Amino acid sequence: MTAYNLGSLLYEGKAKRVFATDQPDLVAVEYKDDATAFNALKKAQLAGKGELNCRISALLFEHLAARGIPTHYLGVDGSRWMLARPVRVIPIEVVIRNVAAGSLCKQMPIAPGTPLEPPLLDLYYKDDGFGDPLLTEARLEHLGLVTPEQRRQLEELARQVNRELLALFDSVGLQLVDFKIELGHTASGELVVADEISPDTCRLWDREVMDSQDRILDKDRFRQDLGGVVEAYGEVLKRVQGACPPPRVYR
Amino acid sequence: MTAYNLGSLLYEGKAKRVFATDQPDLVAVEYKDDATAFNALKKAQLAGKGELNCRISALLFEHLAARGIPTHYLGVDGSRWMLARPVRVIPIEVVIRNVAAGSLCKQMPIAPGTPLEPPLLDLYYKDDGFGDPLLTEARLEHLGLVTPEQRRQLEELARQVNRELLALFDSVGLQLVDFKIELGHTASGELVVADEISPDTCRLWDREVMDSQDRILDKDRFRQDLGGVVEAYGEVLKRVQGACPPPRVYR
Repeated sequence: MTAYNLGSLLYEGKAKRVFATDQPDLVAVEYKDDATAFNALKKAQLAGKGELNCRISALLFEHLAARGIPTHYLGVDGSRWMLARPVRVIPIEVVIRNVAAGSLCKQMPIAPGTPLEPPLLDLYYKDDGFGDPLLTEARLEHLGLVTPEQRRQLEELARQVNRELLALFDSVGLQLVDFKIELGHTASGELVVADEISPDTCRLWDREVMDSQDRILDKDRFRQDLGGVVEAYGEVLKRVQGACPPPRVYR
Repeated sequence: MTAYNLGSLLYEGKAKRVFATDQPDLVAVEYKDDATAFNALKKAQLAGKGELNCRISALLFEHLAARGIPTHYLGVDGSRWMLARPVRVIPIEVVIRNVAAGSLCKQMPIAPGTPLEPPLLDLYYKDDGFGDPLLTEARLEHLGLVTPEQRRQLEELARQVNRELLALFDSVGLQLVDFKIELGHTASGELVVADEISPDTCRLWDREVMDSQDRILDKDRFRQDLGGVVEAYGEVLKRVQGACPPPRVYR
């Protein structure tokens, strides 16, 4: 693949920095070791997390691409840099839940661990200043962020991602409890999966472990002060490595 | 109308008590002076509030009945007792907003005072233990509280109530900013408006007053410590008295 040179910082989020490059159709994403939870009220540095999330995300994006799902991902450069197509990210977080956990169980009379069939899809308005609030169809319409047709498209794409990731994780002994994705439009108007897919954005439980804390292999270890965060992310990487195509490498 | 004797306490809420009577098709509702806000974190006793809310509710229910909208209301007995048909209340709070105010402006980038066209309808799960959370269509379906057809019915009934109350309040110089209603099914299965409709459950602004605090004639005076709560409710009563049929009186 072609070489590139880093340009200016376009955007800095809680876990990543996005840089322009000297190629208009290419951005470079740096994964940071910063861990945040509860709308950034809880913060820490976890050495190695950035690298693990970058490598896991790359593998999962490769898997989705192989299954025909469009993503912004193009390849990796070293262990914590990802190359991607520039996208206008839609400020909506799409959450799909296969099993009840987390905030849902504080907002609804559903016990943690309850299977959700069909999977529950929630849309949240991505804005820390408003606390990433849940969106109803009517509120989404008032915001005017997407047309009804675009909403149907993004929901369908998210459900496809769920089906593919459920099967993939299941094949390596992991339960995909829930996950958050962000979507965006490329310069040509294609709707693609953007951002990252990692233990920061998925709840993953080890299927072989019964203990409700020990089985957790995702950011809940950080949220709940369970320790072993980086070790858990390492375990996820080890599992998915054998089940996904190897990441394409830039330069 | 027929006389009745009070029976046992069926239910005590934050602002009312509901009693059985010796007639199976009749319950008696006592309006209390207790004021609560922020899921009962803020509490007070406001002498006269119960009576004002009972009288205002009775007038508004009479108006809705005259306009063909089914309600649980049957009449009043004295100044703080309301007679009603027994209903199984659906544990969903229906909120319709004509103008942005309150929690909406903390959850969405909409400035207070912005007209909402069409009016925004939100459903909340009525459960203090869960903090009355906002419901999406999918979450409502998971709860299984109503069928999709029942949801359409209750939303349509709430929109009818909005149209009638908007016009009524407008005719007496009041802006109906938003309101919450509860609905229920009677023994025969009819869907009716239940609970109360009062300055505790409506935001009402005096159309003639420009000051954003002085114009408030509803529970926001209590929430925001503006004082003059009972006086404001009294003003609302004075206005609607001339515009609604007089309440039917029991015994």
